[in-house]
Amino acid sequence: MNGKFIVVEGLEGAGKTSAIQKVIDTLKAHGIDDIETTREPGGTPLAEQIRTLVKNGHPNEPLTDIAELLLLYAARIQLVENVIKPALSRGAVVVGDRHDMSSQAYQGGGRGFGKMLMQNLRDIVLGDFRPSFTLYMDIDPTLGLSRARARNELDRIEQMKLDFFCRTRKYYLELAAVEENIVIIDASQSIGKVAIDIQEALESYLIYEG
Amino acid sequence: MNGKFIVVEGLEGAGKTSAIQKVIDTLKAHGIDDIETTREPGGTPLAEQIRTLVKNGHPNEPLTDIAELLLLYAARIQLVENVIKPALSRGAVVVGDRHDMSSQAYQGGGRGFGKMLMQNLRDIVLGDFRPSFTLYMDIDPTLGLSRARARNELDRIEQMKLDFFCRTRKYYLELAAVEENIVIIDASQSIGKVAIDIQEALESYLIYEG
Ligand SMILES: Nc1ncnc2c1ncn2[C@@H]1O[C@H](COP(=O)(O)OP(=O)(O)O)[C@@H](O)[C@H]1O
Ligand SMILES: Nc1ncnc2c1ncn2[C@@H]1O[C@H](COP(=O)(O)OP(=O)(O)O)[C@@H](O)[C@H]1O
Ligand SMILES: [Mg+2]
Ligand SMILES: [Mg+2]
Repeated sequence: MNGKFIVVEGLEGAGKTSAIQKVIDTLKAHGIDDIETTREPGGTPLAEQIRTLVKNGHPNEPLTDIAELLLLYAARIQLVENVIKPALSRGAVVVGDRHDMSSQAYQGGGRGFGKMLMQNLRDIVLGDFRPSFTLYMDIDPTLGLSRARARNELDRIEQMKLDFFCRTRKYYLELAAVEENIVIIDASQSIGKVAIDIQEALESYLIYEG
Repeated sequence: MNGKFIVVEGLEGAGKTSAIQKVIDTLKAHGIDDIETTREPGGTPLAEQIRTLVKNGHPNEPLTDIAELLLLYAARIQLVENVIKPALSRGAVVVGDRHDMSSQAYQGGGRGFGKMLMQNLRDIVLGDFRPSFTLYMDIDPTLGLSRARARNELDRIEQMKLDFFCRTRKYYLELAAVEENIVIIDASQSIGKVAIDIQEALESYLIYEG
């Protein structure tokens, strides 16, 4: 695998989808043309079917936290094996709207599965597959949710209580502090300032590590 | 939980679905009336949707072995939490057409994930939830598949090569040898003789352990 897998992470409304465009522009400005984008959960026909199950649940049946976790990983491995790894093999740069860090933070922190179980499951499913570089868009959940609400109706997960997102953010920050190749972006800033920070972080990565 | 969870296991065409009826008749003859049946994968609205994904796959996308494994466990925990445990709590006897031993044998043996990974995943998902009693219907895969083929068209999993089912059977037998509360039934016998063996095994369990 010669390509790079660049992931944008963060809570709802942090500005991930907006950030992706800045990442793509920056990559193109550096002469990189073979760029593929992914979003998780989803991104393959089967993974999108799984995404629908997770996002909508079922009117007459609670989706257990553990089934949610397993479905997310099932979607992820379909995307990794059928889309991301083939793209990396041909040398593409894959830009991901969320990846495994979301599960670590939402399920490990928000749902409370904890680090041991989550890393154990990640290793079972993903082996040693990891992103090359991650931009974590850090935001206060109240601000993020108010942005997301202004954008569209909230889904099953976005409707969780504030407390859930506070635990998730705390976990994101803990991971960002210890894992390699993660840059924290202050996503509460103006769109313009966020874009500048993203460009700078990505350029440093491309120049020094790329 | 005061009820009992009795599981019938074995390869395709072993006679599991036929055996379930004999189990139910035997339970009723022992004055047990609150009986619920389940089948796996499936048995809840969400689990049946997952069953369809696993059984049919997708015409344009290979279902990876690991996604298959995760989907099966997602379906299983939905069934356990939403159907089996509530039934056991009210004191019912639940009779299952397949349960976790199928994953251990098909994914652990047939797909080759091995014991460590499989038991690790089982413990993550199911904790210490286990059947009370298991009837393993042992059959040569060639005979089982010929019975199954006579019954209806083979699905994605039933179409696997003979070799796959030989590994799965070997694994079933290894598990049956070491796990508790499992009786091996020689499923190659006539329907009448199989029914007698099932009745005897179940009655022993009900009298001595029940
Ligand atoms: N820095 C920002 N300041 C204000 N609004 C923003 C900012 N970044 C994104 N938004 C807006 O907030 C909403 C959510 O952004 P989006 O990129 O969709 O977030 P995410 O993909 O992380 O959920 C969108 O309407 C977007 O235009
Ligand atoms: N002991 C047996 N001898 C011959 N045929 C059998 C026997 N048990 C079941 N069958 C037949 O084999 C087919 C498969 O049995 P079934 O109970 O559906 O197996 P399973 O549920 O294990 O796939 C059915 O048509 C059934 O009537
Ligand atoms: Mg988005
Ligand atoms: Mg059957």
